[in-house]
Amino acid sequence: MQIKEYIDLNKSRFVEELFSLIRIPSISAHSHRQPEIKQCAEQWKKLLLEAGVDTAEILPTAGNPVVFARKMINPAFPTILIYGHYDVMPAEPLDLWLSPPFEPEIRDGKFFARGADDDKGQSFMHAKAFEYLVKSDSLQCNVKFLLEGEEEIGSPSLEVFCRENKEILQCDTILVSDTSMLGAETPSITTGLRGLAYWQIEVTAANRDLHSGIFGGAVANPITELTKILAKLIDEDGKITIPHFYDQVQEVSDAERDLIAQIPFDENEYIKNLKIKQVHGEKGYSTIERTGIRPALDICGIWGGYTGEGSKTVLPSKAYAKLSARLVPNQRYDEIAQLVSAYLKGIAPKYIDIEIHNLHGAESYVCPIDSIAYKAAEKAYLKTFGIKPLPVRRGGSIGVVPVFEKVLDVKPILMGFGLESDAIHSPNENFPVDLFCKGIETIVEFYGEFADLFKSR
Amino acid sequence: MQIKEYIDLNKSRFVEELFSLIRIPSISAHSHRQPEIKQCAEQWKKLLLEAGVDTAEILPTAGNPVVFARKMINPAFPTILIYGHYDVMPAEPLDLWLSPPFEPEIRDGKFFARGADDDKGQSFMHAKAFEYLVKSDSLQCNVKFLLEGEEEIGSPSLEVFCRENKEILQCDTILVSDTSMLGAETPSITTGLRGLAYWQIEVTAANRDLHSGIFGGAVANPITELTKILAKLIDEDGKITIPHFYDQVQEVSDAERDLIAQIPFDENEYIKNLKIKQVHGEKGYSTIERTGIRPALDICGIWGGYTGEGSKTVLPSKAYAKLSARLVPNQRYDEIAQLVSAYLKGIAPKYIDIEIHNLHGAESYVCPIDSIAYKAAEKAYLKTFGIKPLPVRRGGSIGVVPVFEKVLDVKPILMGFGLESDAIHSPNENFPVDLFCKGIETIVEFYGEFADLFKSR
Repeated sequence: MQIKEYIDLNKSRFVEELFSLIRIPSISAHSHRQPEIKQCAEQWKKLLLEAGVDTAEILPTAGNPVVFARKMINPAFPTILIYGHYDVMPAEPLDLWLSPPFEPEIRDGKFFARGADDDKGQSFMHAKAFEYLVKSDSLQCNVKFLLEGEEEIGSPSLEVFCRENKEILQCDTILVSDTSMLGAETPSITTGLRGLAYWQIEVTAANRDLHSGIFGGAVANPITELTKILAKLIDEDGKITIPHFYDQVQEVSDAERDLIAQIPFDENEYIKNLKIKQVHGEKGYSTIERTGIRPALDICGIWGGYTGEGSKTVLPSKAYAKLSARLVPNQRYDEIAQLVSAYLKGIAPKYIDIEIHNLHGAESYVCPIDSIAYKAAEKAYLKTFGIKPLPVRRGGSIGVVPVFEKVLDVKPILMGFGLESDAIHSPNENFPVDLFCKGIETIVEFYGEFADLFKSR
Repeated sequence: MQIKEYIDLNKSRFVEELFSLIRIPSISAHSHRQPEIKQCAEQWKKLLLEAGVDTAEILPTAGNPVVFARKMINPAFPTILIYGHYDVMPAEPLDLWLSPPFEPEIRDGKFFARGADDDKGQSFMHAKAFEYLVKSDSLQCNVKFLLEGEEEIGSPSLEVFCRENKEILQCDTILVSDTSMLGAETPSITTGLRGLAYWQIEVTAANRDLHSGIFGGAVANPITELTKILAKLIDEDGKITIPHFYDQVQEVSDAERDLIAQIPFDENEYIKNLKIKQVHGEKGYSTIERTGIRPALDICGIWGGYTGEGSKTVLPSKAYAKLSARLVPNQRYDEIAQLVSAYLKGIAPKYIDIEIHNLHGAESYVCPIDSIAYKAAEKAYLKTFGIKPLPVRRGGSIGVVPVFEKVLDVKPILMGFGLESDAIHSPNENFPVDLFCKGIETIVEFYGEFADLFKSR
């Protein structure tokens, strides 16, 4: 039976199994979701055993556990390690969802739910591709699955886990489906990821909220001070003003920038889709460059004072912000974390208190396009989509990808099947059902191509 | 029976009656509190009838109803109009309260609850002073009570109500207890109030929250843009930068500034009490001047993006702020509202959307100290506290006070008995029980002094 037919015959079961994962709100950022984290790991273990792995176990880490499973059929065969994550982002703001985030449904040919794409939908394609290869007796690779539960909070425990479990994680290539393509008809393989640094800032003025009539004008306002600090971080040209921030940025050659300019990209469509008036970013770079090869600094959240209905007057005690930096090669997140913390403290006025907490970090990543794994992926997409996929550097961060390179000495292949319109991390996250199916087909093709190229290496 | 003795004998009943008002969360800023607003008006009506008014009624306005009651005993007697408000501020942040905001209790000799001072505690003193005068048959004035339910949202309906009910509101003086004194042993009468303007600002970039990795650096961040806009409003010298903002500010003479400098004020104590490192405000002015005779601009609230636990990365769609200005004579709030709105729109970059909503307005107020009403108040405080009260201009705003002057042509007397440490508008609002009692005594004295001075006028 061909894979297309197998999917057709089993699709309703695949969907029900995927939904069983999605219905569990395994939100790693919320500490009260520990029971759901464990429940989701258990459900993955069950589904992998049903798909045909020999062993599946839930292994502890310093944080949330990982699910590790394998099927070792022949020591002469290459070994593929599949990485995915079973945790998801928080679903707020809830009022913007058209259907409840943890009650998945299919509308307009798409799965809608938190995790529909990132990363339950995408990682589950691997389970089903593997199931087909096992059931059709056509598996030509050893397979390992590694599913973690802390990706959305920066994989704080995975590096240590990888170091301590280097033996069992040994492999010839690593597949990660947690990225998006240029378009449903424009397949692409992500060959670069930005790194990430993340801070929470807390500014304190008085020891309690004050009446803004009685004290306003005589006591510093922490929100005013926070806005003044944050407003200094990016200049009129969209450049980040923090001294030495760009020092380690790998400048991309004119030749590579010429290649980037050839990536099909309709800026008017992009503007229309986001309902923005115009794009906005660092002067001298295109939109694709701004998100692919240049770092960015974003305020992810801000709060303080009265935020309810109506007009409460108050001079607040505290104000907070969450700040993130997307980093490019060769910026190191720990250096940038230090640099930004020191700068923020330095520009804060003496009459307030400021605290900076580093919450998150990930290195950037670049993948070569001449490896047999990359070539196998290229051939697989070409077979399924009919078009050779473009190598594209993307703006997101997957903390563990550079960790794999560092610890296991293997360059992961980012075989993503998402779309930018999937609204990951946002309300109404979705994933087209046909890309879910095409992804399974492409992964199946990868196994064959990779085994062939590995043999003739 | 003397008033002190009467209070002693009836104190537990007074407290129970006051608590019956406080237990009703009559929060005017929250539209879902309409039932509590009505319930609180009914409770006031009941308590005033029990205290001895001839008639009490709940009169409609365009917004929340007012409670109007009177006892007219002799047309030759002067008429006192007592104004107070039965609505309260929201109680958030709730987690900072040591006891629930609407479950009043007495700790350390103080009432603790939302409304303990502002203005249920203070206005209820008038009901009890009046009750004593009626019960002891010593009332020498006609009395009217006017209690409104929209003071904390800027009294939007009261000006029209006053115009339409000018006849029934006619009086010789107006008493308002909704301000604080310099200290429990340093009585003062508020002779000036700042005006108020209040805006809500909404900045929109993209039409939905975006993944900050995929879009960060290429699409404007509304929080970044909002901080840049807000950071431009006050310069390094603490001056408000909005053009023409100070044009109408009445500069205070050197002679008056000399008087202000003589007001007892311990800046070290002030700094210690607020746990701030230093005071901070407009260059060239003292703390008392900054809150009394100078305008101020405060961000009362800000929010946008992810504000929960942990490190969710997001490039938000929207960011919001609440901004207020405290105004001084002769700044007009409608002019300032226009000026600030136009300036904010003018400095907002073209690539975002900005909306400004004017939510609130109040004019400033100055009270002369040579009227018979002021002199009667001065004498009353002197009798009860043993010290002549100082006339002080304060930083708060009471929207209706300048309206009374304009519509009824009467200058209200601000007989406040609160303290700055009462934490009004903040968690753990409180009001010392002994000041509640002393306030009742002082009000009783006022009636006598005012009737005497009125006769010999």
